[in-house]
Amino acid sequence: MGLIVQKFGGTSVATTERIRNVSSHVAREIRAGHQVIVVVSAMSGVTDSLVGYVRDVSLLDEVEAYADHDLVVSSGEQVTAGLLALRLRSMGIPARAWAGWQVPIWTTDAYGKARIEEIETDNIRKSLANGRVAVITGFQGMTREQRITTLGRGGSDTSAVAIAAAFGAERCDIYTDVDGVYTTDPRIVKNARKLDYVSYEEMLELASAGAKVLQTRSVEMAMNHHVRLQVRTSFSEEAGTILVKEEDLMEKQRVTGLAYSRDEARITLSNVDDRPGISAAIFGPLADANINVDMIVQNVTPDGKKTDVTFTVTKGDLALALSALEAHREKIGYQAIHQDANVAKLSAVGVGMRSHAGVAQEMFRTLAEKGINIIVITTSEIKISVLIEESYIELALRALHDAYGLHAVVEKG
Amino acid sequence: MGLIVQKFGGTSVATTERIRNVSSHVAREIRAGHQVIVVVSAMSGVTDSLVGYVRDVSLLDEVEAYADHDLVVSSGEQVTAGLLALRLRSMGIPARAWAGWQVPIWTTDAYGKARIEEIETDNIRKSLANGRVAVITGFQGMTREQRITTLGRGGSDTSAVAIAAAFGAERCDIYTDVDGVYTTDPRIVKNARKLDYVSYEEMLELASAGAKVLQTRSVEMAMNHHVRLQVRTSFSEEAGTILVKEEDLMEKQRVTGLAYSRDEARITLSNVDDRPGISAAIFGPLADANINVDMIVQNVTPDGKKTDVTFTVTKGDLALALSALEAHREKIGYQAIHQDANVAKLSAVGVGMRSHAGVAQEMFRTLAEKGINIIVITTSEIKISVLIEESYIELALRALHDAYGLHAVVEKG
Repeated sequence: MGLIVQKFGGTSVATTERIRNVSSHVAREIRAGHQVIVVVSAMSGVTDSLVGYVRDVSLLDEVEAYADHDLVVSSGEQVTAGLLALRLRSMGIPARAWAGWQVPIWTTDAYGKARIEEIETDNIRKSLANGRVAVITGFQGMTREQRITTLGRGGSDTSAVAIAAAFGAERCDIYTDVDGVYTTDPRIVKNARKLDYVSYEEMLELASAGAKVLQTRSVEMAMNHHVRLQVRTSFSEEAGTILVKEEDLMEKQRVTGLAYSRDEARITLSNVDDRPGISAAIFGPLADANINVDMIVQNVTPDGKKTDVTFTVTKGDLALALSALEAHREKIGYQAIHQDANVAKLSAVGVGMRSHAGVAQEMFRTLAEKGINIIVITTSEIKISVLIEESYIELALRALHDAYGLHAVVEKG
Repeated sequence: MGLIVQKFGGTSVATTERIRNVSSHVAREIRAGHQVIVVVSAMSGVTDSLVGYVRDVSLLDEVEAYADHDLVVSSGEQVTAGLLALRLRSMGIPARAWAGWQVPIWTTDAYGKARIEEIETDNIRKSLANGRVAVITGFQGMTREQRITTLGRGGSDTSAVAIAAAFGAERCDIYTDVDGVYTTDPRIVKNARKLDYVSYEEMLELASAGAKVLQTRSVEMAMNHHVRLQVRTSFSEEAGTILVKEEDLMEKQRVTGLAYSRDEARITLSNVDDRPGISAAIFGPLADANINVDMIVQNVTPDGKKTDVTFTVTKGDLALALSALEAHREKIGYQAIHQDANVAKLSAVGVGMRSHAGVAQEMFRTLAEKGINIIVITTSEIKISVLIEESYIELALRALHDAYGLHAVVEKG
């Protein structure tokens, strides 16, 4: 039987009781005859406390760029890895814990946001061959100078996928606090349905559109290395959602899921000169201020000489963005700035859009029927996003979920 | 200027505020022109929590004998080392944290109670030469198989002394929650006096007699490697007590200090056959049950054929000791067991006893004057210990502190 990688997030190992629960998921795969590598996060809250300690003692700018920062914040996974290995052993399942540096997982020296360069597999392969479960600390690795590094937030998912890729695992199960990927947020749409399969591309679009199930980085890595990824929960035995290549989806849905983000604010610059270099003039200062810009639309005015430019930033960046634009008013040359923080983004995602027409039209009609005004529209090959007034977001999600028939079960994969 | 090792215990680094306080002690030595190696414990309470987690998840006997246990419980020092290094750096003092395995500090593979075999000094010497403070995790090291080990309780003191010895440090300052070694417990005897100097031998006897200032193991190591050890507090700038070789004491006190332990229980086996092998018959079963026996006295009866054997164990071991002795009643052959848990041990320690007579006599007379009965007496070359009824212990300490004139300041060293 093959090798399975199981990754348990912070909520799944939040207490010693939950660690005992996690051990039963490992035991199940062992009974099924698999070799198992487990990747663990820190107990939820622990890494935040450690980061809090760092802020308390240090006045350094970008303190996370120092190796000592990573030595501190990597300690949480060390605890859970050791505890789970001890738990498994006391259940009669041979196991040992591996800190990232013991594997070793080699990374760049970009402390606080290191990238994995290479995972050595010899030591762990030997241990697995001796019948031992390998419990590896997520989120961390080591530089060639033997300094501990961390991979940045959500890094444990990345660790798990990278390990699954390095070992050619049959499957990589990401255990989290939700039991899979849904057609949309079930807290808002009661008949939202758990998807059995979703393509990597769809998952990436859903994640960038606001779905918080998996880190974009780990999905990209799974896609690039053909890792069969499953999102599931440690709080039940139920299967979750499996991420597959688009060509492995039996039937491609026009729309697979609806994602949304309330963390949007709109800025419009009116009567900007429609000249070459105007986009650079607007977005350069925002990039310099480390502000991510999301949706961008530009309309020409009838005379073709002036244009209105609209874009969105996160609500938290709005004030900073406005002051950066004010500071460059002369250079950009706009008549007025309009802003609106009461907006939200709604996205429909589906690989079937490539071949099915009418998805956008159906969205526009459905929203119009409900009297919901569309402020901005952007599209990609498998996604349509609209910006609407924030107070309409639940209504819009429910209406579109019905319109696209997302509650109906379709077997695929 | 020379190299100083500073060791900060759990109470000295218990909070981020205290870590900031600790950094000022490091800064002071740097300003004085020293190179500094700092050894840190975990924040107080952290290691206990980690041990609690281990007990929660594992049903293994002697769980501390597993490598994964040490991976878990060693994480606390990693946090404080990183935090202190970051703190120092943000004060403009170049510093880096070193986990035991990064030094490396090589140890045996006796997990949970490993012994240091070798400390490599090359990496840290280079770092010190570059003007960096080295902040090293106490309590831990690594086996040749690259598994993390811990040294057992109080191991951070041992780490500090071993590091001071390996680097030939000018001095090793142990910062703790008391400001030095006192003539006796100042909570009981108001005019107890802080000692400027004490010999290693006296410190060892005081520690084994109940004084809880330093771990016996670290004092022995300091003595064997001629490490000049200072006990002081991180809560003030005051100098503490310096441990020196006996020959470096200018004036040798008859009595340097009084120690006591309430954690004593007496067992007497009466009418035991006075035959060869009787001690082995009594103490073998106790050793098998992992019970430490402290004071032992044996009296012959007038006819020379029977004897009474009295000894002490800790109060916590009393029940276990009694049942072990009951189980071997036949083999030992005693008439009755008598027990008394309301006893305490009081010890007078001083290297001057070697040359001054009358110390014991003065103790017996003083106790007699106060009407305090002596149950057991044991002596070593520089110590006299008596077992008395526990309720008299404060009275006895005060009377003897006066009788020996311990409140009077004597300059020495």
